[in-house]
Amino acid sequence: MRAKVTVMLKTGVLDPQGKAIAAALGALGFEGVQGARQGKIIELDLAETDAATAREQVEEMCRQLLANTVIESYAIEME
Amino acid sequence: MRAKVTVMLKTGVLDPQGKAIAAALGALGFEGVQGARQGKIIELDLAETDAATAREQVEEMCRQLLANTVIESYAIEME
Repeated sequence: MRAKVTVMLKTGVLDPQGKAIAAALGALGFEGVQGARQGKIIELDLAETDAATAREQVEEMCRQLLANTVIESYAIEME
Repeated sequence: MRAKVTVMLKTGVLDPQGKAIAAALGALGFEGVQGARQGKIIELDLAETDAATAREQVEEMCRQLLANTVIESYAIEME
């Protein structure tokens, strides 16, 4: 199975990378960019073939390694 | 409008971050992780209200700033 994990900073947490992107787009002449936030996407190839079991494994991976749940939220999509 | 841009390394391009994630998951005892790839996700808030125009703007932003099209591919989702 393939899992796609999206990790974003929680709303309210300062996102300097996003701010830099918004400023750079403005400097390049793109008007109307009101905000930008940057996050990570992690694609995992898993040997597990059962979707429910695989999702549980990935949840545990997120809690232990992939996301810092103090400041980041994550979403999991199975494919 | 809100746009979500996903930037991933093209297949064949070495992804050391992905390799580090796969190795760390193995070290934590997660078996069956056959591969991992890491990319970026950028969420943009745009003043533009027409979806087609907004998408064109975002395409141009990807080419000029958000993605290095030599080694990265990008996908745009409008919301």
